[in-house]
Amino acid sequence: MRVENRKLSSIDKINWEIDIPFGKYFSDHLLYCEYRDDKWKEPRIKPFSNLSLSPNTLVCHYGQAIFEGMKAFKDKKQNVCLFRPLENFHRLNISAKRLEMPTIPYHIFFEGLINLLKMDKDCIPSKYGYSLYIRPFMFATDGLLSANPSSKYIFLIICTPVNNYYSKSLKVKIEQKYSRSSTGGIGFIKAAGNYAASFFTTQKAKEEGYDQILWTDSATHSIIEESGTMNVFFYIKNCLITPPADEKILNGITRRSIIDIAKINKMKVIERYLTVEELKFYLNKNLVDEIFGSGTAVIINYFKLINIQNKNYILPSLKKNRRISYFFKKYILDIQHNLSKDQFHWRYHLDI
Amino acid sequence: MRVENRKLSSIDKINWEIDIPFGKYFSDHLLYCEYRDDKWKEPRIKPFSNLSLSPNTLVCHYGQAIFEGMKAFKDKKQNVCLFRPLENFHRLNISAKRLEMPTIPYHIFFEGLINLLKMDKDCIPSKYGYSLYIRPFMFATDGLLSANPSSKYIFLIICTPVNNYYSKSLKVKIEQKYSRSSTGGIGFIKAAGNYAASFFTTQKAKEEGYDQILWTDSATHSIIEESGTMNVFFYIKNCLITPPADEKILNGITRRSIIDIAKINKMKVIERYLTVEELKFYLNKNLVDEIFGSGTAVIINYFKLINIQNKNYILPSLKKNRRISYFFKKYILDIQHNLSKDQFHWRYHLDI
Repeated sequence: MRVENRKLSSIDKINWEIDIPFGKYFSDHLLYCEYRDDKWKEPRIKPFSNLSLSPNTLVCHYGQAIFEGMKAFKDKKQNVCLFRPLENFHRLNISAKRLEMPTIPYHIFFEGLINLLKMDKDCIPSKYGYSLYIRPFMFATDGLLSANPSSKYIFLIICTPVNNYYSKSLKVKIEQKYSRSSTGGIGFIKAAGNYAASFFTTQKAKEEGYDQILWTDSATHSIIEESGTMNVFFYIKNCLITPPADEKILNGITRRSIIDIAKINKMKVIERYLTVEELKFYLNKNLVDEIFGSGTAVIINYFKLINIQNKNYILPSLKKNRRISYFFKKYILDIQHNLSKDQFHWRYHLDI
Repeated sequence: MRVENRKLSSIDKINWEIDIPFGKYFSDHLLYCEYRDDKWKEPRIKPFSNLSLSPNTLVCHYGQAIFEGMKAFKDKKQNVCLFRPLENFHRLNISAKRLEMPTIPYHIFFEGLINLLKMDKDCIPSKYGYSLYIRPFMFATDGLLSANPSSKYIFLIICTPVNNYYSKSLKVKIEQKYSRSSTGGIGFIKAAGNYAASFFTTQKAKEEGYDQILWTDSATHSIIEESGTMNVFFYIKNCLITPPADEKILNGITRRSIIDIAKINKMKVIERYLTVEELKFYLNKNLVDEIFGSGTAVIINYFKLINIQNKNYILPSLKKNRRISYFFKKYILDIQHNLSKDQFHWRYHLDI
């Protein structure tokens, strides 16, 4: 793999003692790989710098772009590990297929990622809860204006050090007019266009004082799907309920991890649809103990308030160590930071 | 407006005598305008050249991008005109609002467009049916990785000379599994992500020998919506039927023009949903005279075959001058090329 070193590192700019805004700083290098003539070319490690793209570049017109989000951690001995990276690799290729893009070969993804992390090891924070957020992404670069799949693509990996994204508790509004996805659609993949489509509705909710929205199904708006950039869990009468990862819902890696942790800890967990009416019923009976969202960036964020049809329901205020959501967050963080036994084999140690 | 001239024109490369592939050649200049700090900066005319974009540019991750398609024509006296340009300006801003992007001011859009066409007047073909396809588009350029609306954008106009896109008759397959849009979604706007989402399904149909697909509604897959990048019309028992331009269907300017032309020519035209079962019934009774798609790029393309649930229906093969679709196409082309009286005031003459 060709490697081009950055002459002056930007890492010294980062003040590790204060909170690091998500995506404010980027590590010194990136992985860059072009696809054309029906094949992937040699991947390269290059200094993080601008790309030269034609104004007719397909992604800017027809949105053919996908991404992943994953994290690298340092343990107390400064050893580096990843959390379930194969799952991200696998999902990226599921996204690629659904948007008619070429899949990424295993060796390009992993050799590229490992070489990149070796170069930028100093950008991985070691503090508990901090990590290097890794963004693999691919977009279409054909310069024809016809609305057809591109014949050229770029696959990149860029990295940004983060602490906990959305660390505060959330006020969430159930959305029953606008939709995020539908049956037969692309809601289950990490397609760029899914996110832009959600901005207007989320912004409206923010203007009304909420932090996020909880989407309902586009056909009836009666079934709860997912929340913004997170999957959602309801803890009701000692049972953890989460919508099934069907074609409308992102098949979250943190979501699956929570389900596995719950099962191994003998908690009752059910993947099923929950309707808005059912949730209202449980809220009115004070039977909802916790609601929380999950995702790679946030890990877990619990909801303090939920708005349904213009009525605010305040959720129970529990101390951190009595919250099931905190139990899951700590369980995952301890595995990520090599502080607990990794019975699931989710930790992937890197010898760099 | 700042204007920077291209030193060497690329126009001489174009062989006007043969068919021009859509989007193969671009005119010499482009309009470029940045939005930041809550306002649009001074627009500029620049030589058509690459943009320098950071790998974290928001459009490549979250698909916040919209576009328009419009055309400039030359009449026999080499005078330049546009076709219903206000409709494109208006729809671009509807798209902008739905994707939480800033709207484009009238003067930036029209002064920019007119100055650009003045510079690149030689790139506008004068042959009947040929035109300069104009692509106004806007995309998000923030460099933070959080999934929020961008605070920075670029608005551009680029141009490509074209003849008739999809000039052949089409074989079209009705799609009843995958979806293009849904209620509460963004199907009615020209959002980049809508197009990428359609590629996989269209490509599958192409591999089966069809040219395009005809989408059905995501909730029941029983109601016909639109075809690929075109609106659709059915001519059944002397009545023109087209699905209503609801939130799931692009509100096509050519579509509206056809409806107006039909009305002024005392044809029966109805905007209503047509179900797949109803279409099958009419096809089985040989009552369907024509089916055609409409759009700015194609103007009109008629269907020669339609596939419903694995059965191919061959549509009547009519001579060009007996086809209602050809009547509409010629009617629109004659207005565009200043060959007929423009009773609707759709032609917009430019004094350049």
